[in-house]
Amino acid sequence: METYDIAVIPGDGIGTEVTSAAMEVLDTVAENHDFQLERSTYDWGTERYLDEGAMMPDDGLDRIESADSIFLGAVGHPEVPDHVTLNGLLLPIRKGFDQYICKRPNKLFEGIESPLRGYGAGDIDLVVYRENTEGEYANVGGREHRGFSNEVAVQSGLFTRKGTERIVRSAFEAATEREGHLTSITKSNAQAHSMVFWDDIVKEVSEDFPEVEVSSLLVDRASMDLVRRPEEFDVVVASNLFGDISTDIAAIITGSLGLAPSGNINEENDYPDMFEPVHGSAPDIVGQGIANPLASVLTGAMMFEYLGDGKEAAADDIWNAVEAQLADESAPRTPDLGGDAKTVDVVSDLSDRL
Amino acid sequence: METYDIAVIPGDGIGTEVTSAAMEVLDTVAENHDFQLERSTYDWGTERYLDEGAMMPDDGLDRIESADSIFLGAVGHPEVPDHVTLNGLLLPIRKGFDQYICKRPNKLFEGIESPLRGYGAGDIDLVVYRENTEGEYANVGGREHRGFSNEVAVQSGLFTRKGTERIVRSAFEAATEREGHLTSITKSNAQAHSMVFWDDIVKEVSEDFPEVEVSSLLVDRASMDLVRRPEEFDVVVASNLFGDISTDIAAIITGSLGLAPSGNINEENDYPDMFEPVHGSAPDIVGQGIANPLASVLTGAMMFEYLGDGKEAAADDIWNAVEAQLADESAPRTPDLGGDAKTVDVVSDLSDRL
Ligand SMILES: CC(C)[C@H](C(=O)O)[C@@H](O)C(=O)O
Ligand SMILES: CC(C)[C@H](C(=O)O)[C@@H](O)C(=O)O
Repeated sequence: METYDIAVIPGDGIGTEVTSAAMEVLDTVAENHDFQLERSTYDWGTERYLDEGAMMPDDGLDRIESADSIFLGAVGHPEVPDHVTLNGLLLPIRKGFDQYICKRPNKLFEGIESPLRGYGAGDIDLVVYRENTEGEYANVGGREHRGFSNEVAVQSGLFTRKGTERIVRSAFEAATEREGHLTSITKSNAQAHSMVFWDDIVKEVSEDFPEVEVSSLLVDRASMDLVRRPEEFDVVVASNLFGDISTDIAAIITGSLGLAPSGNINEENDYPDMFEPVHGSAPDIVGQGIANPLASVLTGAMMFEYLGDGKEAAADDIWNAVEAQLADESAPRTPDLGGDAKTVDVVSDLSDRL
Repeated sequence: METYDIAVIPGDGIGTEVTSAAMEVLDTVAENHDFQLERSTYDWGTERYLDEGAMMPDDGLDRIESADSIFLGAVGHPEVPDHVTLNGLLLPIRKGFDQYICKRPNKLFEGIESPLRGYGAGDIDLVVYRENTEGEYANVGGREHRGFSNEVAVQSGLFTRKGTERIVRSAFEAATEREGHLTSITKSNAQAHSMVFWDDIVKEVSEDFPEVEVSSLLVDRASMDLVRRPEEFDVVVASNLFGDISTDIAAIITGSLGLAPSGNINEENDYPDMFEPVHGSAPDIVGQGIANPLASVLTGAMMFEYLGDGKEAAADDIWNAVEAQLADESAPRTPDLGGDAKTVDVVSDLSDRL
């Protein structure tokens, strides 16, 4: 049987809970489609950091580089600053495997109430292509004169032609396969070095895609428009930071962070891609068994789409089962969606539908 | 009679329309309170740029530096890139007069429908203290190897102790006069140079304000929370960019950009403060006489609060008249608020109420 090696990093908090939930669903679907997942599980995360002083081993990336894909639960811990946990695990993988696309689809499903008045099932359907290796997240900068009155901190956003062109091009390609509309998020009025460069690249690349209609929105305006006219968005392309912000807004207007999947992707190199739900480790609900597993289940569907020669049919089964479950008023729901079901109830209902 | 010198810069697009509307209201109120405004109007803006190559004269700041206050309509023009218009007028004034506080209050008024389900009058009431002179808007950076494959653009955020401390302190002070709750927007998990510094300063300053309850929110989460639980915000403090984004979200969840006033303030130096509505020049509706004047009218109210020894009573009259007008279903409303009234109708109704 066709076998795929998956490096599984459950991580912190509810990460472990939603990961095992997702794996159960993925195994069922794989079996239905005559392939299987061979998992290696890594206990990397903040517990390890607290014991051994590092989120993952020094040769962490080497250990997982030959996997077919990476599945990550969540990272983050109330007792350790986020810049330690993230820079020790999540960000090094994104950067180390050059996963330059962070792809985040958001859809308002039937059965889900948007916090936005007047929006119903199907009214919101967008996907964000977020740059994932540089920009405002570059580890460039410093801090001098600590504690003195002339103290200064500098944080430099770094935008390269290669880094910018490739994410913009991927987003244009995605637009040709969707509604043909691309929104580029920018801030060129205030950031005349980086964002004017970004705009120039969007313009250059657009020449190869005459059929795509391009709009440019300043990040403040884009954040506002995601709230007042989200139906106008189809494909969005944004820098690392602007993509971070807009994907959280996109997740919440489509009902819950508990439904938002994401993939960190580079289809050109041989390194594995990494799939992770958009939500965090949610320390407030850890251990109660009530974490919503659907974001991680849909994350699994995204992983299937990018596995080997593309397991689209298997991915579709998952999307369809989740849609059907959400549309069914009598199906179990976790508290974030207004229900009182447990993680396991949601998974077993989903398995029945598959 | 007490007289205040106001430098008026109507600017571009609907800027001129809303400015003259606001001035009419301000004159009425000033008269009621026994003071008067002496206006000098400057034709700075994009028309001037197109004619003479500069948004304002070289000695522009000198010409207005002795005014008691500056009132700006809006800046921006479809034919000129925003980074030219903004860096030629708005941003040099903010920086040149060291207006380090950008204060933006947002309130959900009776009679206004929030785009957020379930929120009604009074449910949202917050004020953002945005750093206004440095941070991600610093003009530091560059672009090299133009057009070559190794092209790089760098945009550096610059955070100084003085610049950070003073905005944080102002926000803490504001919190003591409101509900005593301060939210600091940060992104220290990904921006470990600037934002960890920011967090450290918030922590330091908080020691002087033990009565204020402080929360820290990552900018992605904050953007989301402004949509899903805006009632939790009281005073918000944010960097230049994060403040820019959060104030646009705050404006839209309280019903319209057409209602959001703002002040660019430095109460310590002798330079004038500058007051401007949050909205832009709205080229799409210019010349139709339908621009909503309320944001600029409320901006005038904010100007009064900071004028000389504080014209709070005059400011209150304006806030009350606007609130009463919005609550009155039969009062005129501009199209952005769902009505079909003209700018002048709104102003004359307001004058009747004053
Ligand atoms: C945890 C954090 C570093 C991360 C990010 O900002 O990229 C998260 O918010 C996300 O969106 O994946
Ligand atoms: C016009 C632009 C430079 C400005 C900003 O980003 O500060 C505007 O969006 C604002 O919020 O006042």
